Amino acid sequence: MKPSIPKGTRDFGPQEMARRNYIFNTIRSVYELYGFQQIETPAMETLQTLMGKYGEEGDKLLFKVLNSGDFLSKCTDEELSDLRSQLSTKVAAKMCEKGLRYDLTVPFARYVVMHRDELQLPFKRYQVQPVWRADRPQKGRYREFYQFDGDVVGSDSLLNEVELMQIVDTVFTRFGVRVAIKINNRKILSGIAEVIGAADKIVDITVAIDKLDKIGIDAVNDELRKDGLTEEQIAKLQPIILLEGSNDEKLNTIAEVLKDSELGMKGVEETRYILRSVCCGSATTSTPVLHNELQFDLTLARGLNYYTGAIFEVKALDVQIGSITGGGRYDNLTGIFGMPGLSGVGISFGVDRIYDVLNQLDAYPKEAIQTTQLLFINFGEKEMAYCLPAVAKARAAGIRTEMYPDSTKMKKQMAYANAKQIPFVALAGENEMAECKLTLKNMMTGEQKLVTIDELIHEIA
Amino acid sequence: MKPSIPKGTRDFGPQEMARRNYIFNTIRSVYELYGFQQIETPAMETLQTLMGKYGEEGDKLLFKVLNSGDFLSKCTDEELSDLRSQLSTKVAAKMCEKGLRYDLTVPFARYVVMHRDELQLPFKRYQVQPVWRADRPQKGRYREFYQFDGDVVGSDSLLNEVELMQIVDTVFTRFGVRVAIKINNRKILSGIAEVIGAADKIVDITVAIDKLDKIGIDAVNDELRKDGLTEEQIAKLQPIILLEGSNDEKLNTIAEVLKDSELGMKGVEETRYILRSVCCGSATTSTPVLHNELQFDLTLARGLNYYTGAIFEVKALDVQIGSITGGGRYDNLTGIFGMPGLSGVGISFGVDRIYDVLNQLDAYPKEAIQTTQLLFINFGEKEMAYCLPAVAKARAAGIRTEMYPDSTKMKKQMAYANAKQIPFVALAGENEMAECKLTLKNMMTGEQKLVTIDELIHEIA
Repeated sequence: MKPSIPKGTRDFGPQEMARRNYIFNTIRSVYELYGFQQIETPAMETLQTLMGKYGEEGDKLLFKVLNSGDFLSKCTDEELSDLRSQLSTKVAAKMCEKGLRYDLTVPFARYVVMHRDELQLPFKRYQVQPVWRADRPQKGRYREFYQFDGDVVGSDSLLNEVELMQIVDTVFTRFGVRVAIKINNRKILSGIAEVIGAADKIVDITVAIDKLDKIGIDAVNDELRKDGLTEEQIAKLQPIILLEGSNDEKLNTIAEVLKDSELGMKGVEETRYILRSVCCGSATTSTPVLHNELQFDLTLARGLNYYTGAIFEVKALDVQIGSITGGGRYDNLTGIFGMPGLSGVGISFGVDRIYDVLNQLDAYPKEAIQTTQLLFINFGEKEMAYCLPAVAKARAAGIRTEMYPDSTKMKKQMAYANAKQIPFVALAGENEMAECKLTLKNMMTGEQKLVTIDELIHEIA
Repeated sequence: MKPSIPKGTRDFGPQEMARRNYIFNTIRSVYELYGFQQIETPAMETLQTLMGKYGEEGDKLLFKVLNSGDFLSKCTDEELSDLRSQLSTKVAAKMCEKGLRYDLTVPFARYVVMHRDELQLPFKRYQVQPVWRADRPQKGRYREFYQFDGDVVGSDSLLNEVELMQIVDTVFTRFGVRVAIKINNRKILSGIAEVIGAADKIVDITVAIDKLDKIGIDAVNDELRKDGLTEEQIAKLQPIILLEGSNDEKLNTIAEVLKDSELGMKGVEETRYILRSVCCGSATTSTPVLHNELQFDLTLARGLNYYTGAIFEVKALDVQIGSITGGGRYDNLTGIFGMPGLSGVGISFGVDRIYDVLNQLDAYPKEAIQTTQLLFINFGEKEMAYCLPAVAKARAAGIRTEMYPDSTKMKKQMAYANAKQIPFVALAGENEMAECKLTLKNMMTGEQKLVTIDELIHEIA
């Protein structure tokens, strides 16, 4: 039997794990700097919790876990024949009561409702766990992947949006990855739809506007006509389609168009507040401004049906890849579980794509992904016995140290050091033992010196 | 709808996660100090990989994941009726091809075989991931729980056993938990069976001997008679049943009994080597000896069918609970996947039980489980604008800091600080703003002082 793994899943080896841990630890430490606390929820949720939350397509992409035990023995012939037509029947309910986590949002909503009495609101939580989707696997799309979400629920303050932008900026600055942070507001989009009288067309409109750079203004207007907009509506949209300038200039243009829409103007005000607070809340003092540019982008409309206020998205500037982080403000996270009126705002780091970006830029700090720092070569029982106290001393000094366990050929042991990219190798033969010293080899430079164990520790630690 | 989670599963809230992270990070850092590298494998493995690896009972405890798509539409009536009698039929194979990880050992074996060409042996890996078992849930037994395994494969050197004992000792020393580390050797048990001519009775014999303290020598001998041992065999066993003294004395007694068994004597030699190297490999130098006692325990027989050399088990001394860590040497990890002859040695930390032990002893270092260090009180827009640069400065200094996002009642904000056990609170009203200062309150002592932001950072960081 030749072993394999289910399609769309992955093994992560030592080098990949070191890199992924660097990514996870960086994001984790920034979340914690802002007071977010971690939670974990079970891999399996009841199907009652999961079904109907991701649309009809989503229901099909849920991995369902077969009930254990002898649950089909009491089915009638008819019930079993039912299985042939569809699984969402009485029999299906007998077969499966549990499914695998599809995202972190629904389990988080379920968590908040179940633990409402223990939670101190506002609740700032982060969560990093795998999710599973029975999607067709393809390049960069997996059936098991990690999400890394942060949300603040139970506070309407825009300070939360501001801090999430700062978190995003800090994370990518620590990664050394240049990004554009795009921001929009659902209320602005709704305001535009309201003002031109085409509330149902707002997605079509943002899609068409987004193509301006590629196809030009005439083609955009043609597309809007095809979408069913009238000439009057299209005329009203012109200043918005041709929107340009700084964030302030764009917002001023939009404010002019939206001046009669209360909702739209609220969106403009919110966006101005966030941009002002993030970028120059520090006008009079020494607050650091963002390292990355925050761009108001009217065409940003991700998850439009879900978000109710600010919408965020992050794009890498130096790597061709889709959005690597996104989020926004939502109302009524928990309404579906019987707890209405709880709003929140959150972001999700696309850690698999961030991994691809850091790989392409080779942006991993050496010390962050290095595992063993020092390998002792094994020349035999006597030499090993001489080295073991030094090994223990190096470890006690916090140096990640190995003694090669077998006294095999030197060449094999050096190959081991190279494969694990161990930067220092120590060895002791007759001469070293006679002098109570060790030879320390720097694997990068090839330099060798005769040292005491204390000098060795001083050199590496 | 009242939300719930599947039975036997758990949510981990912020406090639990902080504690669990402390446990995981401690074990992780010790593994890494010894050169172990992390891998991760998918939650789902093919049923081909999983089935038949955990015995008949284990097959029943596997969680099976329903295939996605319209896989039953082509079944005949007969095939569907088959479902009623059992799931391990043609139809069952159509229904499920994947199952959830049951332990970390089988996926590790599968991983080693699949990645044999990339791996540099000896391979020292650690792995910390959840596993799932469709067991009847009960107190302390869950359907989803974490395992934390470390193994060295591809080396027969006893240095690996020695280092695993040092890892166990270091981990529990860092936890501040007193433990007894018990060690035995399968070869000794096999030697005993060989010498008395009762190879098939070795488990019965260890079980009976284990009861000596409780029931006395006569009752033990009666039990051996019931197990079918002859008077001659029981007579030969007397020195072993009455085994006492130091580790050395016990091993000397056993060596006397086993002097004609080559295998048994090899077990004695291995155990002597491990005990000597772990405890006093440092006789002539300054290697630290273990902090916890290593006890040779002839009655230790866990996973007897799996282990072929050393067997380990760890018991907490100050908490009544079963084994909290265990492991041993095995041959032929990967034979079942077509790669024979690969031996290894490993340990598994029982992190759920360790969590229970640390909770009972309240052994968490405060700084390890503390989340936010500093909360700024929000008195309104003007005060918040005054505080935000200080918030940013505190974060830039690495202090985990929050600004309460809404300007609600002081009482509510202080309750938030208390609930999150935040040790410092900062506030600024008219007076503080006039002086360009902040009031810093120590929530433990109640002490308040007027400070600059730099003084505040100095105080907390």
